[in-house]
Amino acid sequence: MENPKKISVGIMGVGGYTGQELLRLLLHHPSVRICCLSARAEKPKPVGELFPAFAKRIDLVCEDHPPEVMAKGCDVVFLALPHTISMQRVAPILKAGKKVVDLSADFRLKEAGEYEAAYQTKHLHPEFLKDSVYGLPEFYREKIRNSTLVANPGCYPTAVLLAAAPLVKGGRGARFLIADAKSGVTGAGRKISGDLQFAEVNESFKAYKVGVHQHVPEMEEILKDLAGESVLLVFTPHLVPINRGLLATLYVNLSENLSASALIAKYRTFYEKEPFIRILPEGVFPEIKQVLYTNFCDIGIQVDAKRKTAIIVSALDNLVKGAAGQAIQNFNLLSGLGETEGLL
Amino acid sequence: MENPKKISVGIMGVGGYTGQELLRLLLHHPSVRICCLSARAEKPKPVGELFPAFAKRIDLVCEDHPPEVMAKGCDVVFLALPHTISMQRVAPILKAGKKVVDLSADFRLKEAGEYEAAYQTKHLHPEFLKDSVYGLPEFYREKIRNSTLVANPGCYPTAVLLAAAPLVKGGRGARFLIADAKSGVTGAGRKISGDLQFAEVNESFKAYKVGVHQHVPEMEEILKDLAGESVLLVFTPHLVPINRGLLATLYVNLSENLSASALIAKYRTFYEKEPFIRILPEGVFPEIKQVLYTNFCDIGIQVDAKRKTAIIVSALDNLVKGAAGQAIQNFNLLSGLGETEGLL
Amino acid sequence: MENPKKISVGIMGVGGYTGQELLRLLLHHPSVRICCLSARAEKPKPVGELFPAFAKRIDLVCEDHPPEVMAKGCDVVFLALPHTISMQRVAPILKAGKKVVDLSADFRLKEAGEYEAAYQTKHLHPEFLKDSVYGLPEFYREKIRNSTLVANPGCYPTAVLLAAAPLVKGGRGARFLIADAKSGVTGAGRKISGDLQFAEVNESFKAYKVGVHQHVPEMEEILKDLAGESVLLVFTPHLVPINRGLLATLYVNLSENLSASALIAKYRTFYEKEPFIRILPEGVFPEIKQVLYTNFCDIGIQVDAKRKTAIIVSALDNLVKGAAGQAIQNFNLLSGLGETEGLL
Amino acid sequence: MENPKKISVGIMGVGGYTGQELLRLLLHHPSVRICCLSARAEKPKPVGELFPAFAKRIDLVCEDHPPEVMAKGCDVVFLALPHTISMQRVAPILKAGKKVVDLSADFRLKEAGEYEAAYQTKHLHPEFLKDSVYGLPEFYREKIRNSTLVANPGCYPTAVLLAAAPLVKGGRGARFLIADAKSGVTGAGRKISGDLQFAEVNESFKAYKVGVHQHVPEMEEILKDLAGESVLLVFTPHLVPINRGLLATLYVNLSENLSASALIAKYRTFYEKEPFIRILPEGVFPEIKQVLYTNFCDIGIQVDAKRKTAIIVSALDNLVKGAAGQAIQNFNLLSGLGETEGLL
Repeated sequence: MENPKKISVGIMGVGGYTGQELLRLLLHHPSVRICCLSARAEKPKPVGELFPAFAKRIDLVCEDHPPEVMAKGCDVVFLALPHTISMQRVAPILKAGKKVVDLSADFRLKEAGEYEAAYQTKHLHPEFLKDSVYGLPEFYREKIRNSTLVANPGCYPTAVLLAAAPLVKGGRGARFLIADAKSGVTGAGRKISGDLQFAEVNESFKAYKVGVHQHVPEMEEILKDLAGESVLLVFTPHLVPINRGLLATLYVNLSENLSASALIAKYRTFYEKEPFIRILPEGVFPEIKQVLYTNFCDIGIQVDAKRKTAIIVSALDNLVKGAAGQAIQNFNLLSGLGETEGLL
Repeated sequence: MENPKKISVGIMGVGGYTGQELLRLLLHHPSVRICCLSARAEKPKPVGELFPAFAKRIDLVCEDHPPEVMAKGCDVVFLALPHTISMQRVAPILKAGKKVVDLSADFRLKEAGEYEAAYQTKHLHPEFLKDSVYGLPEFYREKIRNSTLVANPGCYPTAVLLAAAPLVKGGRGARFLIADAKSGVTGAGRKISGDLQFAEVNESFKAYKVGVHQHVPEMEEILKDLAGESVLLVFTPHLVPINRGLLATLYVNLSENLSASALIAKYRTFYEKEPFIRILPEGVFPEIKQVLYTNFCDIGIQVDAKRKTAIIVSALDNLVKGAAGQAIQNFNLLSGLGETEGLL
Repeated sequence: MENPKKISVGIMGVGGYTGQELLRLLLHHPSVRICCLSARAEKPKPVGELFPAFAKRIDLVCEDHPPEVMAKGCDVVFLALPHTISMQRVAPILKAGKKVVDLSADFRLKEAGEYEAAYQTKHLHPEFLKDSVYGLPEFYREKIRNSTLVANPGCYPTAVLLAAAPLVKGGRGARFLIADAKSGVTGAGRKISGDLQFAEVNESFKAYKVGVHQHVPEMEEILKDLAGESVLLVFTPHLVPINRGLLATLYVNLSENLSASALIAKYRTFYEKEPFIRILPEGVFPEIKQVLYTNFCDIGIQVDAKRKTAIIVSALDNLVKGAAGQAIQNFNLLSGLGETEGLL
Repeated sequence: MENPKKISVGIMGVGGYTGQELLRLLLHHPSVRICCLSARAEKPKPVGELFPAFAKRIDLVCEDHPPEVMAKGCDVVFLALPHTISMQRVAPILKAGKKVVDLSADFRLKEAGEYEAAYQTKHLHPEFLKDSVYGLPEFYREKIRNSTLVANPGCYPTAVLLAAAPLVKGGRGARFLIADAKSGVTGAGRKISGDLQFAEVNESFKAYKVGVHQHVPEMEEILKDLAGESVLLVFTPHLVPINRGLLATLYVNLSENLSASALIAKYRTFYEKEPFIRILPEGVFPEIKQVLYTNFCDIGIQVDAKRKTAIIVSALDNLVKGAAGQAIQNFNLLSGLGETEGLL
């Protein structure tokens, strides 16, 4: 007999890399019943036929459900949809009184105008922006608990913000950051692109969207919220020829003399109770392989004293802590479950 | 009948990645006769037996030659040896009146004391340091032409210095740089290491030697020479899961208002006559795949005006422009050949 | 309060790729309490310090425990040790009345002489061979349930035997097979080897141990057991530049006219009740990515009618169904748990 | 002053992987003047703008030339075009009295009907089929010298036929072969495909077109020509997550007792004078990395005496000996140049 207290969940966009990872993780979640899966498909098909990796693991028909159907069958709906599509789906679910964890960028910025500048599209539901909560539990845990619409952060923002926060927060913190970030290929989502063909990416490496990445406003907005005043962020993303994982290297000018060990102590205190943040010992730095398939963000810290610069390196799995895992962490919070359930 | 004017060359350390690449490139060089190949080997063996990739391509026996033998048979000897080994081999060759292109770090720094601090070993031949020339032809072409001992730069310094020079040179240039660099695995040389096992490197990415890399003194010394005063460099190397290629992303504070196109123009002027430097058009950034197996260094330029920061990205093949190709460029110069011979 | 009925388990050799995978999987297993972890280590250390991927996931000290200590603390001990080491550890555990799942080759062959020929070492405990059970649940489920020493199959034998069995079994089955197998790098275990350096493996591909692989006796022994008479197997392993996964392509002469769909039907019937075998639809063939991080073995089937040859392709994750996952499947059986527990 | 005896060549389809490789190799060729480059492009552009890897290496405008223009400017035209496109371009060039090396499959089969069955398209110029020569110099050297239209073999056929020939040729040779082949991704040509996206190919491995590959007729036709009677070939291609390189493993039943060393001797004799075939010593097998960026085909040989089976492994670079390098070898032959010119 199935646990009657299980929470019914659905995923819209289960065919993308993030949707697939959500499904993989939710299958292990002890308090979840997966009820509805939606994907673009010509006709309804068993999940295991559409996505052979899931054959014999889940017995459910996947089809192109409208949000009204998702709302009817689920307590919580995960939207693993591209930017600009999520905002077309969210209203019927919220109006039915159900909760949403949205993995797109559509509800992350507080001002519709900023969204429109960054994504070059009119925002369809600015009325939801003031109540949506930015889903970084390490900073906004209580708000998330009381929310009905969580805007799950992007993978770059998660890595950069977690690495930056202890240096930025409060009155005398840093107000200028450089973040040099490197992401695996699934960070770009599942799309058919000449640039992402195997022979174009493999054995290569490049910077892209230099000086113009659409996630900078999202990061600067949260940094401002943490700092209480504007913070400038220079951000350069790079493409690493790996499937998953993301590493960010931050450079911060130090106004005071601070040893690496003192800075590590400050980070340890800041993240003392966090289940998914691991501050590494002095002289040890994150490697993507240590966080793959986990919800951890690892942070390593160095100080170049002669050049008065702190170097903060963070790493996470872009599909877990940078997307699906963090979405489940948010889901746990807004469902009143243990925050780490299904994630350790 | 063979061209009697060909220059006789030898390679010590032909078994390493750099030595193999030198051999590959020299086989195409129209003015070179390869006379002596030396490698650690239990007994003399045909090159094609020791290194199967060269079977049927060169008919020469490779053995563990002492430098005296190399000096006898060659006009120019390439030392593709690890740091600290080169300086044990160089004296007999120079004393025999032959020329040396040394690919190790042993003769790059002008002060023996700095070498000893960086490499933790006593320098055996400080008397050669004042006459050795740093083999970056873009900056020291004339000196190289008149030299007998060229210290070929490391791959990281080549990428960083070429990207930085136009912003650093002269009176009002930058005096503080951040260089975030990413290298393929052959940059570490051919050695058996647990850290470099396939399953440890593949699908991962990491920073290493954060704040303590031994190439920083080499870079700061040349930057100082270019600038006429001290320049500080924050440098973080990272390991990319690819065989070859290196990309460096530099961040430089801009004291004046400068558009990307103006900065690109400045770089184009600076490198106008250089055969191996390619300044990319605005909005285009280097990719490692575009420089693989070539002696080019590609440079892309962006300005983040709001944050007053120039972002300079350079890419090269660490085994070619970062090692063997540059060594041949230096060899061409000190042999009175055309600088690009065998390299285009 | 912890479930008092949980089974106490330990792992010897937790530092290898297989040991790490076992630990990862056992952390998710609802009926397991991990009590003892043993690895070669200079001194006892928390697991999360020795293996940073496990920091904050398990709170246990790992040390170089002798088997007597493992026996005392555990109901079942997994031996994730290299060939020839396992047989040095197993006796004290069995004598203490505890059960063993051995992932090495030491107890797979029934005859000590065959073992000694294949592994070039004297067998130290031939007395255990007659009672050890070959841990391929699809063929030996009942024996495993009643066993105290399960010899977990190698990854190559699992993929080859599962693909071959329906064609080999019984009176008129095939008696000659060709298996061309391709494995990721972790199949070789965690060892420091010049051949397995990243730059030696990446962007390459090779056959190895052609005609002489030590797993052939293991496979021919089980094939003989299935067939009731000798079966000859030509086996060639290849190294794929990926971390994990294994694919085998079998070629079998067909004595009778048989369409692909008829052969697929035969396989479906053969494996009808198996939870971890997925027979793919006609025209679809296995891909390693579909089985990664799962305990499934996918099998695709084609018939080349003109050339009277069946082509059977199987794929699995060498660390899961080819090692740790299958070990847990065996553990579930010999512990009286549900066979799929912790594995779906 | 340029060598007046240089041969003028052009490439149609220079934007594909094969076209790019041809250009790279021809730039090194001492007897070639590259006159015309054609690619699909909206408007004429310098090669270095269209293909940044060639910036500063060649100064030529590339445009979508019709074959008539190519014919006017060139002595020899390389067609690096997809199957079915080549036959639309070839006539004007041949009619102008110029020579063609065609890298597509359009002129490889002798019977238009076989072509139409394999490629599902009507053949537009069956009249050229009887005079076209299959461009495998090791078998058809003299015919190629006298030809005007060379049909350059595919990469799979080159590897399989070179490995098979010594066992197949003549009266008592093998008449049944199994070839299990593995290719890097560029073997599929440059096309935008969901299946060839980085994250779909990387860390995976699969068989494809099992039992139905369109190159089987080409291989069986040449095998028949070598054997003097029909030969059956079971062929399975696989996709390796690497950019370039191809390895084929052949299984051949041995009717007579033959040791590995005797078989190796037979192969050495067969290929004694071939500049690009390397028969490896006993116990050594090909690795893709040893042939990358070269025109060699390496062959390793083993005999499984107990199972009366020869195992022949061949490796080559699919873009060189499997395409562009072999095309230049053919070009050298039909131009009266040294066969290895520009290739060693």
